[in-house]
Amino acid sequence: MTDPLPSWNDGETKRQIIALVRAMADDKSDTFVPPESRIAVFDNDGTLWCEKPAYIQASFLLERWREMVQQNPRLGESQPYKAAADGDMAYFADLYAHIEEILRGVGEAFQAITPEEFDEAARQWFASTRHPRFGVPYTELIYQPMRELLDLVRNNGFKVFIATGGGRDFVRVVSEALYAVPRECVIGSAAKLEYRDGKVLRLPELVQPIDDGPGKPIHIYERIGRPPVFVAGNSDGDIQMLEMARFGLLLYHDDAEREYSYDAGAEKALEAARRNGWLIVSMRSDFAQVFAPKRGARNG
Amino acid sequence: MTDPLPSWNDGETKRQIIALVRAMADDKSDTFVPPESRIAVFDNDGTLWCEKPAYIQASFLLERWREMVQQNPRLGESQPYKAAADGDMAYFADLYAHIEEILRGVGEAFQAITPEEFDEAARQWFASTRHPRFGVPYTELIYQPMRELLDLVRNNGFKVFIATGGGRDFVRVVSEALYAVPRECVIGSAAKLEYRDGKVLRLPELVQPIDDGPGKPIHIYERIGRPPVFVAGNSDGDIQMLEMARFGLLLYHDDAEREYSYDAGAEKALEAARRNGWLIVSMRSDFAQVFAPKRGARNG
Repeated sequence: MTDPLPSWNDGETKRQIIALVRAMADDKSDTFVPPESRIAVFDNDGTLWCEKPAYIQASFLLERWREMVQQNPRLGESQPYKAAADGDMAYFADLYAHIEEILRGVGEAFQAITPEEFDEAARQWFASTRHPRFGVPYTELIYQPMRELLDLVRNNGFKVFIATGGGRDFVRVVSEALYAVPRECVIGSAAKLEYRDGKVLRLPELVQPIDDGPGKPIHIYERIGRPPVFVAGNSDGDIQMLEMARFGLLLYHDDAEREYSYDAGAEKALEAARRNGWLIVSMRSDFAQVFAPKRGARNG
Repeated sequence: MTDPLPSWNDGETKRQIIALVRAMADDKSDTFVPPESRIAVFDNDGTLWCEKPAYIQASFLLERWREMVQQNPRLGESQPYKAAADGDMAYFADLYAHIEEILRGVGEAFQAITPEEFDEAARQWFASTRHPRFGVPYTELIYQPMRELLDLVRNNGFKVFIATGGGRDFVRVVSEALYAVPRECVIGSAAKLEYRDGKVLRLPELVQPIDDGPGKPIHIYERIGRPPVFVAGNSDGDIQMLEMARFGLLLYHDDAEREYSYDAGAEKALEAARRNGWLIVSMRSDFAQVFAPKRGARNG
């Protein structure tokens, strides 16, 4: 049998994942899951793609806010536009202290345009931007081992969804190409929409709740209508959706050399993982390679 | 080649539908649609199942409201509980005059329970209730020709979604068994949810907008992230989603003998169909049979 996870190091983690997934698809096993219930949900930032030094979408928004200030300098007198224009990264690092201002800015960044116009803006940005450390397009900073895991669960009859705390529409632009996950299987935070003059348009307000933390089970029920059996995440915002699943996987970022090493924002999730028996995957020990080998990409 | 629509009468309508759907799946045709864009959306009430003498979900709600008044007689002093308890059908017939009261009642009917508890209540109701005229379970009042049409589009590589103005969660209970449409492909109006003490619970408020009229394109973009290519509907509430599609089909209820004959609520849709060239399907002329032949079912 060919190795379904060639970018994972051989060992207990890899062995457990393969055995668990296959058992859920095997009607002779005790942990068999009927096909219609075989739902797998993956977080995106830090679980499928790199989220450092900033969320990829944050870089997209910063560039847009700077552009808005250039077009309308008075905007630069208020937040988050001022911080964006001044390059005041400390403001953004203290995310939760400024969350209301920032979320208002998120909504305003692409208001009153159609979903197709938003897609085009995101597509252009992905094509023209490079990661500050790795020097490659952000679309090359997908974790190859996780891509193989998506295939493994799919090949065992799971339907795969992405539940991102970030922007649903931002991820939809690249989900088919990067993950073979169609747009309709991407769940996430989003702008409210309105229908006016025969067109769907983005409003400045965001749909509540945001698809993060306790919002994830809500979005998952709204979209899928049943609890996932398999959930993969990496941060505190994934705890509640991990609690829904029979099998939980937490990706632990402990590889400063090939990617980044950090606990911040994952402290409670790591604690919950130990308490609940979720599988903790060490990027350093369990990943044989981190990013897909692609022209120009530096893979550590 | 076997006939993909055996319950449709031979004629121009059937010929056109088959030719159009096949052309969209044929990469040598002018109207070819790439697989990822092959999205078909069907309305439910009056398009896939019988909506007379009342919406099926309305019967479910009436029974629930009567039960609530029995448990708490003071509730019967306010609407819509009073009308439900008194059997005052004139109140419900004038739907739009009482829409706010009625929608409040819809939200309150199943509040503070889990989605699984709601499923169970709906399942029990479907199993125990008969249609007042046809004397069969409501689940036998699916239009067999439309079920064949679902298969035809699926067999030509379309992904099928249901967009119901009624309750998403109500339709999800039966969508897999009746239409082979999995729960995650049902879009519709819904109660807001909250996450409390590790559980997802239904709130008394409804998600805005309702999935009807201009709400349908909004829900479709939220859920699918792109416009449908093929849309089937039957009423004024389907106009905006029909306007999104390359191919629109409007089912016209003109068969008093085998089902019902009515224009009410579809006047504007019929006008829009003529203006936009949507295909109008006559139940009387185009359907060889209306309901699936099933034990105990009277099919006209």
